Amino acid sequence: MARRVRHRERHFAGSAAVRDVILGMSDGLTTPFALAAGLAGAATSNLLVVIGGLAEIAAGSISMGLGGYLAAQSEAETYRTELAREIHETEVMPREERAEVRRIFRDYGLKGHALDQATDAITAERDAWVRFMMREELGLEEPAPRAALWSAARIAGSYVVAGLIPLLPYFFPLDLHRALLASVVATGVALGAFGAVKGTYTGAAPLRSGLQTLCIGGLAAAVAFGIGRLLARLGA
Amino acid sequence: MARRVRHRERHFAGSAAVRDVILGMSDGLTTPFALAAGLAGAATSNLLVVIGGLAEIAAGSISMGLGGYLAAQSEAETYRTELAREIHETEVMPREERAEVRRIFRDYGLKGHALDQATDAITAERDAWVRFMMREELGLEEPAPRAALWSAARIAGSYVVAGLIPLLPYFFPLDLHRALLASVVATGVALGAFGAVKGTYTGAAPLRSGLQTLCIGGLAAAVAFGIGRLLARLGA
Repeated sequence: MARRVRHRERHFAGSAAVRDVILGMSDGLTTPFALAAGLAGAATSNLLVVIGGLAEIAAGSISMGLGGYLAAQSEAETYRTELAREIHETEVMPREERAEVRRIFRDYGLKGHALDQATDAITAERDAWVRFMMREELGLEEPAPRAALWSAARIAGSYVVAGLIPLLPYFFPLDLHRALLASVVATGVALGAFGAVKGTYTGAAPLRSGLQTLCIGGLAAAVAFGIGRLLARLGA
Repeated sequence: MARRVRHRERHFAGSAAVRDVILGMSDGLTTPFALAAGLAGAATSNLLVVIGGLAEIAAGSISMGLGGYLAAQSEAETYRTELAREIHETEVMPREERAEVRRIFRDYGLKGHALDQATDAITAERDAWVRFMMREELGLEEPAPRAALWSAARIAGSYVVAGLIPLLPYFFPLDLHRALLASVVATGVALGAFGAVKGTYTGAAPLRSGLQTLCIGGLAAAVAFGIGRLLARLGA
């Protein structure tokens, strides 16, 4: 039993991390790919593509990481604000808060004596009472300490790792068309593998998840590339 | 009472939406700004900056939206997988699952007869039992239908709206240095206002939140811009 619980907890401490890695990787596999592909059409040397791509990875990882930091920070602030409100409400309007505990237990099917006793027991201690309201009424879990910084680091790191994949072929002394082709293949393989691993984590069928991610990501990269080309042609 | 509960629910249906808007806006205010500022240093006309900026907004919003779609989809898949597992476990190992309900109530301070009765009542109906385990053991809430599509639309839309702000000055017939200056000011004001509104939503002090977002966002934009310039100079 203890093993199962520990396994679960490990699994769910990982849930926010999975979300961060997915956010960073999916963006990192499409934007730098599209930019590099766009530059490959206009540039005269691999060096320019590599420089542009690295600059995009630097800028993109920083601003994606910032977004993750601010979003996680806002979740932590929401938790703190609501916690303070629940504590305050159990102090100044205990009857109403007690009635809410009752209502939650009634929704779970508790009746009569069991309902009374469970409500009494939960509201006997403020700590348990507030924790119960946070989880059952508001669906909020306490964020881990330094969650915002970790979230930023995971998103930015995933963006950098994923962004280097479509860029890799341009580091080699290939002509630009071959490098572009290799970049398409590398990005496609990475998108499929990323989708398959994501499926394994979330319990979806890996093959289906891999193909789906390949299609959506490929479409996103193709549209981004097409728009860039079209606009560049209009400007030229 | 009913009013308060309704108010709360509205507030918390909005929690995922707030996260999406923060992710989209913070990235949309920094990457397009940095790219436009970088182009303004090299370009000979406002038109090139506008075209490059619009292409970046198109590519960025698509790939950010994709990331949000995949992340929300993975949360929904995790929920479905865990729900199926809980249902299965209450069927094949009801004693262990019952013991977990007991353990959860004991952690809330229930004892003796109240503990027995509450455990009996929750485990009497499979639906309530499974819902209780999902929320209390795993901290998982059921995702809204089409949550992934809505999340993608919110992130991409926020990116587009935010990305147009630093680009706006280049649409006017200003010389490039003035347009860049106006872009810096517009982005700064937008970052500060965005932080202040975010603070109001999450319950943090608006002024503090506005200044903090302005500083972090400004730093991210400046670093992104600096790296782009440095790399461009190395390549030239």
